[in-house]
Amino acid sequence: MAERITPRSENYSEWYINIVTEAKLADYSPVKGCMVIRPRGYALWERMQAVLDGMFKETGHQNAYFPLLIPESFIRKEAEHVEGFSPELAVVTRAGGEELEEALIVRPTSETIIWSMYKKWIQSYRDLPLLINQWANVLRWEKRTRLFLRTSEFLWQEGHTAHATQEEAREETLRMLEVYRRFAEDWLAMPVLTGVKSQSEKFAGAVNTYAIEAMMQDKKALQAGTSHDLGQNFAKAFDVTFQDREGRQSLVWATSWGASTRLIGALIMSHSDDRGLVLPPKIAQTQIVVIPIFKNQNKAEVLAYAEKIRDSLKGGFRVEYDPDDNNSPGWKFAEWELLGVPIRIEAGPRDREAGKAVLVRRDTGEKIPAAFGDIPAKVGSLLEDIQKSLYAKALEFRKANTVCISSYDEFLSFFNDTDGGFAESPWCGSGECEAKIKEAAKATIRVLPFGNEQRVRGGCVACGKEAAHLAVFAKSY
Amino acid sequence: MAERITPRSENYSEWYINIVTEAKLADYSPVKGCMVIRPRGYALWERMQAVLDGMFKETGHQNAYFPLLIPESFIRKEAEHVEGFSPELAVVTRAGGEELEEALIVRPTSETIIWSMYKKWIQSYRDLPLLINQWANVLRWEKRTRLFLRTSEFLWQEGHTAHATQEEAREETLRMLEVYRRFAEDWLAMPVLTGVKSQSEKFAGAVNTYAIEAMMQDKKALQAGTSHDLGQNFAKAFDVTFQDREGRQSLVWATSWGASTRLIGALIMSHSDDRGLVLPPKIAQTQIVVIPIFKNQNKAEVLAYAEKIRDSLKGGFRVEYDPDDNNSPGWKFAEWELLGVPIRIEAGPRDREAGKAVLVRRDTGEKIPAAFGDIPAKVGSLLEDIQKSLYAKALEFRKANTVCISSYDEFLSFFNDTDGGFAESPWCGSGECEAKIKEAAKATIRVLPFGNEQRVRGGCVACGKEAAHLAVFAKSY
Repeated sequence: MAERITPRSENYSEWYINIVTEAKLADYSPVKGCMVIRPRGYALWERMQAVLDGMFKETGHQNAYFPLLIPESFIRKEAEHVEGFSPELAVVTRAGGEELEEALIVRPTSETIIWSMYKKWIQSYRDLPLLINQWANVLRWEKRTRLFLRTSEFLWQEGHTAHATQEEAREETLRMLEVYRRFAEDWLAMPVLTGVKSQSEKFAGAVNTYAIEAMMQDKKALQAGTSHDLGQNFAKAFDVTFQDREGRQSLVWATSWGASTRLIGALIMSHSDDRGLVLPPKIAQTQIVVIPIFKNQNKAEVLAYAEKIRDSLKGGFRVEYDPDDNNSPGWKFAEWELLGVPIRIEAGPRDREAGKAVLVRRDTGEKIPAAFGDIPAKVGSLLEDIQKSLYAKALEFRKANTVCISSYDEFLSFFNDTDGGFAESPWCGSGECEAKIKEAAKATIRVLPFGNEQRVRGGCVACGKEAAHLAVFAKSY
Repeated sequence: MAERITPRSENYSEWYINIVTEAKLADYSPVKGCMVIRPRGYALWERMQAVLDGMFKETGHQNAYFPLLIPESFIRKEAEHVEGFSPELAVVTRAGGEELEEALIVRPTSETIIWSMYKKWIQSYRDLPLLINQWANVLRWEKRTRLFLRTSEFLWQEGHTAHATQEEAREETLRMLEVYRRFAEDWLAMPVLTGVKSQSEKFAGAVNTYAIEAMMQDKKALQAGTSHDLGQNFAKAFDVTFQDREGRQSLVWATSWGASTRLIGALIMSHSDDRGLVLPPKIAQTQIVVIPIFKNQNKAEVLAYAEKIRDSLKGGFRVEYDPDDNNSPGWKFAEWELLGVPIRIEAGPRDREAGKAVLVRRDTGEKIPAAFGDIPAKVGSLLEDIQKSLYAKALEFRKANTVCISSYDEFLSFFNDTDGGFAESPWCGSGECEAKIKEAAKATIRVLPFGNEQRVRGGCVACGKEAAHLAVFAKSY
């Protein structure tokens, strides 16, 4: 019910958590920092998995499964990798009633265990490229957690590919970034910026990290998928070489890329409102709910009519039907709005007599009358329209909250005196300026967006020296 | 290649492991007892998942996800449960750089963490039944492991349901057992016995465990799926009660049921032969491979013809095409036989001229010529025929190796002097006789099969006292 949801304007964080728990997407578990993904939340993940998995297979990837536990010594083989992940590791020290000789890490990511296998599997250029993806749970012990957005355990997919040349590995990195962009924009109706991360924000062990970044309704950025150019770092750490066409031994080139259940949090914060979830039709588990409105004296006829409507939609759409007579129509409207179903169809006795029904859009509340025979076609075009308009609205919001700033005073004021947004600002490329900004404005570089190289004008927003990049700064999740 | 596979008659265990590794289904990992499931093995699991998941949803279940880590105290709440699982637990004692106050168990199964959540979610009869399934990894630290059949980590699904009455819970237990039976027989072409386990073989924490049991080609039994009637054991341990229609508080009734990547081992050992994998067409990732047979002077025409054949099959079947000219046709035939593809289509220059091709069955080696236009229809009926005949052959094998034995001497001789099989024998129902048989014959009760109650004749095979059951004894995996 709407009353259970704190309005965004009052407390944005509480609004988010209310939606997650009231729509029964997830719940707190008795294990610190770990969540339970409830059936309605998991159904969203299943649809995301199905779509992404299809996109991975279309681009030539196969799924496999690697062990959950990783020998502690493996994690230590790549210097930056161990430094980045050490503070977050969960460690198995006892198993089968005995202390283990070597502790085992619950995987925070699987580069090390996978590259130890790639060493066995890769001998020749004929074994390349090796294009593998894994759907799995991972564990990163977090101090401050938030359902879906940051939890100690989360579900994700991690692609790990091996290539004969640097060029091929870079192409793969960008190909998968583009897969994430298409998924976010076409399916989640969530516009994203694509680009490269600064060195301080990259994955521990990568040469470069690319990311998609979306703006949430509180104007903060959320990183929704990353693709890493790993160079030869893991091939070196695990001594993975191959014989090329000319018979020479060379180190293998690598990529990895991942997206997680965090996408559910991003989806919620992109579109939802104070009445609850708003879901893009392409990803919604239920696209339409048919609600009969009846009294005792006309119940049978109205139910029969509502069922006829439901049946006319069954083939082409994901439709539910709610004839429950324990709850009033008003209660049901609110409940299905909370759950984010894109279209509600109301059918009462007068609708039945007139051979009509009322279609109600979840995103705008607009009521659209339709004759019985027109309902499937109307629903089809409405769903498309909702998908498009959610995207357009989110894009509009991002544009309205993205500013070009080149003066440091304005920059600080934007982040410290207003509720911020995305600042496109020239940056000299130094870690010092980045750190200074983080300290003073709590904003970080989200990406150096593609296609903006020629737009770099003037000096670095922080130090005034010649700018090397146009960077997008924001507060972030 | 066939040479890489030890014949079954020579060393059955080696034959099995050769198939798993040579067909690249799985590999040993650097973590003791844990396997890597390679893409060809994982593709089998994906198809199994898709089919089972559909069957679970048809029977009203929803998927969810619960934490990997379980507080140690939870495992201790159900006395039999902790006793059964304690020796196999892997324990996280350190996380985020600190020693944990309470150790966390990597889930060996999820009853305890799930019932701790059900306590929050179940208040009234309106919340029941609660029908949830989880696809997940679990860890049971094993001393002796074998790829797919017994590994410390494995993938599985675990259903966990909550009901208002004992009757409903029992119905659910048997409903899911029947889902497993249908899946094993209709999809894996693997005939199974269904029945209840003896008390000594049941799940730790169950009132009764039901199972499907299949006979492998070495005549040993393999438990391929279990469904547990948990009574009120977990509801008691976690204090889960509900208010019934009359306003009384009652304890909830529970079931759980699971099947795992062990099914891949069962599938291999049911049908494969000394040349490699044999896969039932309904579960095979690739159903047909088209192999052009060409020389340099006719390569272009033959490839074009083979592609025409491939294209004519693309819509209705899962088809691959192997035009690689680095390997000879004979090498390719052996390779695709090793991988278990049900039908190979050979197309050479003479086939092209005659507008024909040769279809070769993987299971029997039979060669069937077909005119181009007839290929799709012929392939369709052949695949059905292969599916049926694999089932029939396995059933025939089980029947030929199942004997009714009522004398203890014959029983001991059957298991100690021959290579055994399934012994249907009367049993008094005592744990002592069961233990005595296990000691003397290394055979255990696999199930008390359904529908055999009236067939119990004479005295217990071990003690001669009045028999209560007809039990199926076998050596097992």
